[in-house]
Amino acid sequence: MQEIKIALVGFGNVGKALARLLEKKQALLNTKYGFSTTITGIATAHHGMMIAPSGINLNHVFDHLNNGNSLDELCITPLPSSILDFIQTVQADVLFENSPVNHHTGQPAADHLKTALECGMHAITANKGPVVHAYNTLTSLASEKQRRFLFESAVMDGAPIFSLFRGPLPAVELRGFFGILNSCTNLLLEMMEEGKTFAEAVEYGKSIGITETDPSADIDGWDAAIKVAALSTVLMGIPLKPDQIERSGIREISPQMIKEARDAGERWKLVCSARREGNSVTAKVAPQRVKSSSPLFTINGTSSFVQFEMDTLPGLGILESNPSPETTAYGLLADLINAVRGG
Amino acid sequence: MQEIKIALVGFGNVGKALARLLEKKQALLNTKYGFSTTITGIATAHHGMMIAPSGINLNHVFDHLNNGNSLDELCITPLPSSILDFIQTVQADVLFENSPVNHHTGQPAADHLKTALECGMHAITANKGPVVHAYNTLTSLASEKQRRFLFESAVMDGAPIFSLFRGPLPAVELRGFFGILNSCTNLLLEMMEEGKTFAEAVEYGKSIGITETDPSADIDGWDAAIKVAALSTVLMGIPLKPDQIERSGIREISPQMIKEARDAGERWKLVCSARREGNSVTAKVAPQRVKSSSPLFTINGTSSFVQFEMDTLPGLGILESNPSPETTAYGLLADLINAVRGG
Repeated sequence: MQEIKIALVGFGNVGKALARLLEKKQALLNTKYGFSTTITGIATAHHGMMIAPSGINLNHVFDHLNNGNSLDELCITPLPSSILDFIQTVQADVLFENSPVNHHTGQPAADHLKTALECGMHAITANKGPVVHAYNTLTSLASEKQRRFLFESAVMDGAPIFSLFRGPLPAVELRGFFGILNSCTNLLLEMMEEGKTFAEAVEYGKSIGITETDPSADIDGWDAAIKVAALSTVLMGIPLKPDQIERSGIREISPQMIKEARDAGERWKLVCSARREGNSVTAKVAPQRVKSSSPLFTINGTSSFVQFEMDTLPGLGILESNPSPETTAYGLLADLINAVRGG
Repeated sequence: MQEIKIALVGFGNVGKALARLLEKKQALLNTKYGFSTTITGIATAHHGMMIAPSGINLNHVFDHLNNGNSLDELCITPLPSSILDFIQTVQADVLFENSPVNHHTGQPAADHLKTALECGMHAITANKGPVVHAYNTLTSLASEKQRRFLFESAVMDGAPIFSLFRGPLPAVELRGFFGILNSCTNLLLEMMEEGKTFAEAVEYGKSIGITETDPSADIDGWDAAIKVAALSTVLMGIPLKPDQIERSGIREISPQMIKEARDAGERWKLVCSARREGNSVTAKVAPQRVKSSSPLFTINGTSSFVQFEMDTLPGLGILESNPSPETTAYGLLADLINAVRGG
């Protein structure tokens, strides 16, 4: 049985869900995919870091953190001086990078992934930043090191998007796509349909934890734009940065506009779209009124949807309903399995 | 460059679209996938059959058939005595089986595919019948012969369903699914929403060629049921035959029922569903009123949709918009590429 040693950078909801999922799926990984996993290190920004070469005790780690302690106290080796030092000394086979996104630089995630690849690890992330800002660098480096740089969860949580084009969709030419890729704004617009003003919806969103303290990345369309940029960069082979995308958010949507749409049997949605034109791509994120005949009409709550237009398949839509940190963790697990088996 | 010799059984709209698609994608197959294709034989039920070991001239074949001639006249080898004889003598690497479906036996397609595998060919089909009636036999035989039995186009034209579970969705447990899998009834119900009676819709459907002369396979839910059976058999590993599925068609849907649904903001759809319970599956095909919050609400025209519920992904929907024979042909091409590269 091949043992795969795993290091985690970032141990928030997604990192924790991944650790639990690895435990839950261990028997299946052994029997069906021929490998076992051992988490040998965890590094966080604010709760310390630990290396345990023979594997961590997950329940112990959870208890320790829940009691407000630092992971530093569980580190068996000399304490790494930084996250980069952690990556260089942890001696794992795979790094999962789940630090917070930086829409404008992709850092420090991109450096973490680069260091992991340089150390001979597969580099897997749910972080959009490095996909948009360092895709070519990291992919070339991975190829040179005969390792993989994978990021299935970066755009639609765990729904298969990138692996779909690597495997089941050979010989297609992707001409364009449209969809709803930001769940926060989708929920805010739905709350406005239920009678709230924009400001009330944002406040309510904050109170239940679906809206960030600084919600501008979602509301102004940056999160959607970086996802469009990631899809264009990877699936169309045309690198695009978020600031190259025509972008308007949902701040200007008024209760009156919501009412007028509803009276016409339509709904406001923050719509992403991209279209290839020769060797360039024209991309846009903007609120649009969608008709009841559009597949976007029924995208509710935190669900997301993307429809691809290809030369051979005029419209292939992928819908993800009810995602959670567990869904994102599944995308990371799928990447791990594909890295190990070459899928 | 590896040359892949191809034999076609069935040369209707899908077979012809496949032949054209192979021609169109030839340069890409060469450069990206490292093989070329040559069609060395075509067998039809009513327009003769031909074998041309060095390859057919596609335009010549089309002209010949368009002029009402039989393929027999183009056969360079001794004329095969039957389709099975054709398969045994054509000496191809891949058989594409596109004969009409038999919902109750899967024949003669299943025998065609079996013979192809016995002769050492990959066996690829868009025909649901053999998937439901001979999946285990054909899959075992393919494995024994180190060949593939593939059928991506059998359930949702060219949309990737089966390859999705082979590749991008490792380590999942499929718990159930629901969807709209029959496009004829979906169109008939839409025509009724536009004011036609059921009988008028069927007559109009016949006049524009979307409804079969004997439309009972669609209208009574057999086509949907066999698709549900195929998904259960292959994706859940639980063999199911169409007559084991609780099934009711759309004959009883009246204009009054359509109106009542519309007044309530709902639509009648022929809904397929299946749910795993231990080692068995409960499956159903029946008309249902769907709400505007359901992803089924926006499935129009000949589009189809299926949503999978898995342990790790609570809802993953696949939508196919505007399929055509070219879409089905693409699924066959994808199977070919996956057979050759082992995907």
